[in-house]
Amino acid sequence: MQLQPESRRVTDQPQPSRRDLLSRIGAVAGSSAMYLAMTSLGLAAESQYSGPITLDGDPKGASVLILGAGIAGMVAALELRKAGYTVTVLDYNARPGGRTWTIHGGDTYTELGGETQDCRFAEGLYLNPGPWRIPYHHRGMLDYCKRLGVALEPFIQVNHNAYLHAKNAFDGKPQRYRTVQADFHGAVSDLLAKAVNADTLDHTVSKDDRESLLASLRSFGGLNADYTYKTGPTASARRGYDKPPGGGMGAEPTDSVVTSASDVLKSGLWRALAIAQDYDYQTTLFQPTGGMDMIARAFAREIGDLIRPNTKVTAIRQTNQNVTATWTDPTTGEHGTTTADWCLCTIPLSILSQIDINVAAPMQDAINAVPYAPGMKIGLQFKRRFWEQDDAIYGGISYTDLPITQIAYPNSDYLHDGPGVLLGAYPFGPYAYEFTALPPAERIRKAVEWGAQIHPQYKAEFEHGIAIGWHRVPGALGCYGQWSTEARDKHYKNLCALDGRILLAGEHASYIPAWQEGALLSALDAITRLHARVMSP
Amino acid sequence: MQLQPESRRVTDQPQPSRRDLLSRIGAVAGSSAMYLAMTSLGLAAESQYSGPITLDGDPKGASVLILGAGIAGMVAALELRKAGYTVTVLDYNARPGGRTWTIHGGDTYTELGGETQDCRFAEGLYLNPGPWRIPYHHRGMLDYCKRLGVALEPFIQVNHNAYLHAKNAFDGKPQRYRTVQADFHGAVSDLLAKAVNADTLDHTVSKDDRESLLASLRSFGGLNADYTYKTGPTASARRGYDKPPGGGMGAEPTDSVVTSASDVLKSGLWRALAIAQDYDYQTTLFQPTGGMDMIARAFAREIGDLIRPNTKVTAIRQTNQNVTATWTDPTTGEHGTTTADWCLCTIPLSILSQIDINVAAPMQDAINAVPYAPGMKIGLQFKRRFWEQDDAIYGGISYTDLPITQIAYPNSDYLHDGPGVLLGAYPFGPYAYEFTALPPAERIRKAVEWGAQIHPQYKAEFEHGIAIGWHRVPGALGCYGQWSTEARDKHYKNLCALDGRILLAGEHASYIPAWQEGALLSALDAITRLHARVMSP
Repeated sequence: MQLQPESRRVTDQPQPSRRDLLSRIGAVAGSSAMYLAMTSLGLAAESQYSGPITLDGDPKGASVLILGAGIAGMVAALELRKAGYTVTVLDYNARPGGRTWTIHGGDTYTELGGETQDCRFAEGLYLNPGPWRIPYHHRGMLDYCKRLGVALEPFIQVNHNAYLHAKNAFDGKPQRYRTVQADFHGAVSDLLAKAVNADTLDHTVSKDDRESLLASLRSFGGLNADYTYKTGPTASARRGYDKPPGGGMGAEPTDSVVTSASDVLKSGLWRALAIAQDYDYQTTLFQPTGGMDMIARAFAREIGDLIRPNTKVTAIRQTNQNVTATWTDPTTGEHGTTTADWCLCTIPLSILSQIDINVAAPMQDAINAVPYAPGMKIGLQFKRRFWEQDDAIYGGISYTDLPITQIAYPNSDYLHDGPGVLLGAYPFGPYAYEFTALPPAERIRKAVEWGAQIHPQYKAEFEHGIAIGWHRVPGALGCYGQWSTEARDKHYKNLCALDGRILLAGEHASYIPAWQEGALLSALDAITRLHARVMSP
Repeated sequence: MQLQPESRRVTDQPQPSRRDLLSRIGAVAGSSAMYLAMTSLGLAAESQYSGPITLDGDPKGASVLILGAGIAGMVAALELRKAGYTVTVLDYNARPGGRTWTIHGGDTYTELGGETQDCRFAEGLYLNPGPWRIPYHHRGMLDYCKRLGVALEPFIQVNHNAYLHAKNAFDGKPQRYRTVQADFHGAVSDLLAKAVNADTLDHTVSKDDRESLLASLRSFGGLNADYTYKTGPTASARRGYDKPPGGGMGAEPTDSVVTSASDVLKSGLWRALAIAQDYDYQTTLFQPTGGMDMIARAFAREIGDLIRPNTKVTAIRQTNQNVTATWTDPTTGEHGTTTADWCLCTIPLSILSQIDINVAAPMQDAINAVPYAPGMKIGLQFKRRFWEQDDAIYGGISYTDLPITQIAYPNSDYLHDGPGVLLGAYPFGPYAYEFTALPPAERIRKAVEWGAQIHPQYKAEFEHGIAIGWHRVPGALGCYGQWSTEARDKHYKNLCALDGRILLAGEHASYIPAWQEGALLSALDAITRLHARVMSP
């Protein structure tokens, strides 16, 4: 089984100067921000975001040209205008948001290569092709959602009743998450208890800890009083029942039969249990009610007047005095230039590396150093929410080692009648390339065919779908900047440093790649440094 | 540390006749119900509920007196009236719902002993003193919510950023759930990997399984390539960072420092990790938007006209022809009798055991055999949602070994400004008795004092609270029927069997005690048997 790893962060860890940061925050923002900052910089803190940014002092009409109206560009536009800058935003797309994008029924999408898909989702149904969840520790995103009035609802990451599936495990029959979890925890705890009781860990576990360890294994693993994991009421209270308890006569439950340790281990299905332990996927996660584009729309309500859409930048040239972007409007044929004192460029490096830009070698090398990760999402509409009605799966994610990698169920409108849209495929890596190489209709056909191995109802209930392969999305040409440790060591600081009058921002200029929070924090850091430069004598 | 066990089910497991049940369902309800039933009776099924009940045939005006307008009584009233019965419901309370109850601002509550509390919660804030969550496998409750138009939202059970606290662990400093989870999984996996690599489990783990086991421990435990759990990027990606990753310059994360296996084991905080593995607390859980009483109100919209409120039943007498309840109305002084052909009594056994009822010894003995569990809930209103703003805790539960046992955060209105209400105490067992023995104001004072050990903000932000001790709730005199295995073996069937013209229902007449689903399934089973009796020649 090859469940796709969802964790993508590359981590290094030099020591920051916390005291300096704290005293700066305290000086500009008072004790309440100081408290918040202390909390967020304390042990196991949640975020480097520590409350609304303050750009003090009058920039005296300095102008900033922002390229790209994704999260980074829109955050920067909002804050820079508020600080007194003259701001213009040029964006490639017809809609603001960049990869913060939601496809609704009635939308039309043309990918690189010319294939056009008409989204026929029913009213209120949607697919987020890009970001789809916001963790509790993405405090920047949460704060902007709050300030901009974006309603949030929980995103269900772990659903104990969703399926785990592998082609070669359990004869290809999907298993419930809860049974795999219970049987894996049980197997591991049972084995370790045996080792402890056989005194084989005496040199590792002290006498004092031995009793605590055994008690913890019994509790954690659902073991019986003799420290074994086996079919019975204790295991059923974790993994579920063959016949669940009921009411009145004949209400006694019947235990389900546990899977042997060997079968659980061989299945590889335990791989899925690690996912929700990842810091990025821990609860509580959120999604904007109605689609991730609610965030883009909320920003656009504030700074939409600053954005020129449908604007393809072809060159970025700076002088000692200013920066000029040359652009064309493919929808009208119009072309022109826009000039400002400074430029904040948030264009993905996959595109920027193809644009004529006169920056020095360190930044240009950095721009060229980051490949973009492949990724694809397919939204499938079905006549009814059979996953709820037949399978009792309300939101969350089923995982499989098929190329679709997962099936994610809508985390809203629970128990509704009528059609529903689920995420029918979300491949990364080679699978994403293979999928994206197919025409959209074929991608969808394959997703339905594979998904039917987990949900046989697919065949009777499928209506239509839409397939977004990020390497074919014209404004992105990839999912996110995929830094290697080596590339980060060599290029990251050069990517982020001010080059003359040009500064970069976006998820690629962060240590939180692929996440909106990375784009947001990168933009706040960039404009803070830009402002300091503007205000310096 | 003595975290209160939340699991309360007592399980036995005789074998049911599934084939019989399936053919009955197929005969009366067609193939769609048959499919649903097959699903729900399959391996590791979710519920004994298999779709709307069908009571075929004309009861020819037979009348049923239902005692109690909780979930059991209201479900029975709805279905019996639909089937053609003449139905009357007598209820002790002024409001329908029984223990399905929500306290809102403006409500007044007088407990046994005469203490009256005025609830001063702000608009939209509430406490569910009784049931507060609905698991995905309570398909009866979910189906009635759907049919009655009750909106549901996710109930967050596990919040990785909530706290685990024990007086004698970590100097009384609360720990984040995520750090305890990561460090416990890490410690257990590290130890078992050591045992495997020392070949001490060779007789237990086959060569084939050995590699899978080591790979699974590395994945599950967040181990490094050498199968050790220690401070570094891999552990931080689970437990969180000292300085989390950010954007732009200085964005590199700093690892947090892992806790030693010995300290994790000694702390006892691992006890909390088992809770969400319990079948009853697995995701996806729901709560009705606005309070659990939305369910009571929805039922009342359907059958409220059948309910006589404020009606205290003092005697239940049956003859060969009918059943008569004698009652008084404490609010008006009115008293009278109500007679019907049959009686479905859903009054809690804690009360029923004190009422004059002429049933045979087996049922009377059963009524007297079940003590009621103690339980208490305290709702606390604070000036602001500091747990979100300061602690990044959005919904979910913090656990402690203090008598309050837990602090549960609201799973709605995330990120809102203004005051919020949290569950400040939810003790069971001895703690619940001790709490309930205090006057309400004192209970609240203690909850605030203890809670401040976890959230120091309590002291500055607390406004007011309300405290419901179930042993002092006049219509209930306890939380739920606490069956012992011995009592079940001896009395359960006698409790559920028809005695002349009297039948009992409620969570006490189920194998899902303390849950609304138990009450619901018990009522459906009871009226199915009652109807069969009425229709039999």
